[in-house]
Amino acid sequence: MSNKLDTSPYKGVRDFYPEDMWLEKYMFETMRKAVESYGYVEYTASILEPAELYKAKSGQEIVNEQTYTFTDRGNREVTLRPEMTPTVARMVAGRRRDLGFPLRWYSIPNLFRYENPQRGRLREHYQLNVDVFGITGLSAEVEIISVANAIMQGFGAHDADYSILINSRKLLKELFELFNISEEKSYTLSKLIDKKEKVSAEDFLSGVEELIGDNAKELVALLSSNQKLLERIGEDHETVKTILSVITSLDQLGIKNVIFTPTLMRGFDYYTDIVFEVFDTHPENNRSLFGGGRYDNLLELFGNDSVPAVGFGMGDVTLADFLRTHNLLPAYRSEVGAVLATIGAVDENEVAILAQSFRSKGLNVAVTIGAKKPADVIKNTLKQGVKYIIFVGEDELSKKVYTFKDLTTEETSSLSFDDIVRSIQS
Amino acid sequence: MSNKLDTSPYKGVRDFYPEDMWLEKYMFETMRKAVESYGYVEYTASILEPAELYKAKSGQEIVNEQTYTFTDRGNREVTLRPEMTPTVARMVAGRRRDLGFPLRWYSIPNLFRYENPQRGRLREHYQLNVDVFGITGLSAEVEIISVANAIMQGFGAHDADYSILINSRKLLKELFELFNISEEKSYTLSKLIDKKEKVSAEDFLSGVEELIGDNAKELVALLSSNQKLLERIGEDHETVKTILSVITSLDQLGIKNVIFTPTLMRGFDYYTDIVFEVFDTHPENNRSLFGGGRYDNLLELFGNDSVPAVGFGMGDVTLADFLRTHNLLPAYRSEVGAVLATIGAVDENEVAILAQSFRSKGLNVAVTIGAKKPADVIKNTLKQGVKYIIFVGEDELSKKVYTFKDLTTEETSSLSFDDIVRSIQS
Repeated sequence: MSNKLDTSPYKGVRDFYPEDMWLEKYMFETMRKAVESYGYVEYTASILEPAELYKAKSGQEIVNEQTYTFTDRGNREVTLRPEMTPTVARMVAGRRRDLGFPLRWYSIPNLFRYENPQRGRLREHYQLNVDVFGITGLSAEVEIISVANAIMQGFGAHDADYSILINSRKLLKELFELFNISEEKSYTLSKLIDKKEKVSAEDFLSGVEELIGDNAKELVALLSSNQKLLERIGEDHETVKTILSVITSLDQLGIKNVIFTPTLMRGFDYYTDIVFEVFDTHPENNRSLFGGGRYDNLLELFGNDSVPAVGFGMGDVTLADFLRTHNLLPAYRSEVGAVLATIGAVDENEVAILAQSFRSKGLNVAVTIGAKKPADVIKNTLKQGVKYIIFVGEDELSKKVYTFKDLTTEETSSLSFDDIVRSIQS
Repeated sequence: MSNKLDTSPYKGVRDFYPEDMWLEKYMFETMRKAVESYGYVEYTASILEPAELYKAKSGQEIVNEQTYTFTDRGNREVTLRPEMTPTVARMVAGRRRDLGFPLRWYSIPNLFRYENPQRGRLREHYQLNVDVFGITGLSAEVEIISVANAIMQGFGAHDADYSILINSRKLLKELFELFNISEEKSYTLSKLIDKKEKVSAEDFLSGVEELIGDNAKELVALLSSNQKLLERIGEDHETVKTILSVITSLDQLGIKNVIFTPTLMRGFDYYTDIVFEVFDTHPENNRSLFGGGRYDNLLELFGNDSVPAVGFGMGDVTLADFLRTHNLLPAYRSEVGAVLATIGAVDENEVAILAQSFRSKGLNVAVTIGAKKPADVIKNTLKQGVKYIIFVGEDELSKKVYTFKDLTTEETSSLSFDDIVRSIQS
């Protein structure tokens, strides 16, 4: 049997068996419901994109090392999209004149990254992307964070289960200017601050010292205390006022778990101002869940004028981890209402017609013909997570009274067609 | 501007703007509803599959010429799946012991083929796949064809809009044996017959003559007349009886547009017996829409015992062509219930809170703040396909009576919150 095929999926990607798919659909539908209530409409695109789309912002190196990129026979370089933002920017730029602004769009694409699989980081994952285009004012930030919060609440999470961290990219930029740090060093310093929570306090300090010398201690002190930072920069400072204004608006909308976090950076380079992050407060899963921010300049890549944009992305793997940690995952329930199973020899067409009658009442009914024993039908129906079995033999067909089994209570009863419909629907 | 990025998608794939996405979702939901009523449950998998999965059945050449196949840095050959059947066979084989049979599974994957884009043939398309595993009897064929028919009816198609062609792979095999045609020539002849409708009668005959010589005329005559074929093979012949039995069962279930078509082959090599095809009868779109059949041996590739299987695949591009041809495409309607737009200076947070109140009634409401003129709001709302606008100024907020505009009738009225909710919901 050396030439038999392996049944494993490709490394780092997932098979979605019906139970997995059901959970994925539950997550997507919960996202959709929250997002659509804010007037967002769904779009999507192919996973195949011209490689240039990513080179413009990320440079050749990142495209080749962290993405799936290959050359097709027409000598085109193709990338399996690693994120959706460049795609949505491309689509908006392509039809800018025909679209009505503000534009509220969402999508739940699968994304690909060429990395070693680990907890929460697969080679393929799904990510809800929510973006509003065409709003310069802070109402966009307030709305986008409200949407993120509505999704969390839609999953049954409570305020205490997560925090919403908020900052502005401009704040750090201005802080660096106060310390006379060059633009080149600022970039490296930003990356260092982005990783702050992942290293020890000593390592962080020595990293900053290496970069900016004697001022490091003071800067790190400011970054560790909002109070000191605000004293130094001043609460009247424009960027600080912006951040505090968003926090106040969210508070008025009932969103109280927002925390000003001056060290918050978010990875992508294209953010221009406010950034935010939803953070799991559970001690066993104390980590960033997802986030986003304002990126006003991305459409310029396509030769368009700049279009103000605020958005976020929320990955399915991280979300499922959060839901599992907080006991918010629902239990699987098959969409199949009942299995209609034959006992003994019956006319198969009569059974098919009976099944049709149940379907015409809006029930999902599967048919099992010719099983050797009722016990086999019960075993297989349990494996599939279906709750009811309708047993049908010649006798049942002629009397129009059927043997109805509830696999949860293990009760069996003789019921008419209408009674069965009622029992399953209730 | 020589370095500005192109806004076109990659060659042969589609962008789904909200209207396109809405139509795609309409098609998928209509499919889901019909398929789930028969007890099928949804699964999916990654588009990335080990290339070996396709080589086993198709040979190296096809894998490289018609698929996207590349080598990853772990030296694994990866293929973007060109069809779903090998994947579902892999998944069923992988958990065969844990799954309850009969297994009814469906999926709506995107599939990739490396070919020159043309009408109805893109490089990426979506395809509903419906498969039942574990049934040896003809009830599986009857059910699968019923499901295909239920989908067509679910789209509003009438019996006269399409035919269901049916045949068995065994029939031609046995016919070839009657004519003493070698197995090698049989394969080539099958491919010739598969393309019969695409060439002239003369070309078809000369092709068959080239292959089998003098017997060609008689064989072609049999293939052109069901009556002659049945006379020659005999209606008592096992394979013929099988085909006629499926047709009779479907007839009893009210499916009358089924046509026995001895030349029907279907492309894939893995079909073992009954095959079927749904064919558009419209003179302007007279073509095969989709089809399927029985494939009992595919799981053997994974070292499993054979598992009986019947299924079909239905592509979105071909389906949309059919719906368009028969005027069955619904008109786009945005999922957004209303746009809430401000007039003059208002407290943004009050507007956000009002929008929340509408959402709490189950409405999808988008907010537009600070538009210069109501005419701009109307223009953009029309572009988005949204029917209602709720105008809100300081006056409206204090009186709790809002200016409500119906863009279809162009009527404007002053309504309370409750009246607006009722108007939109009705």
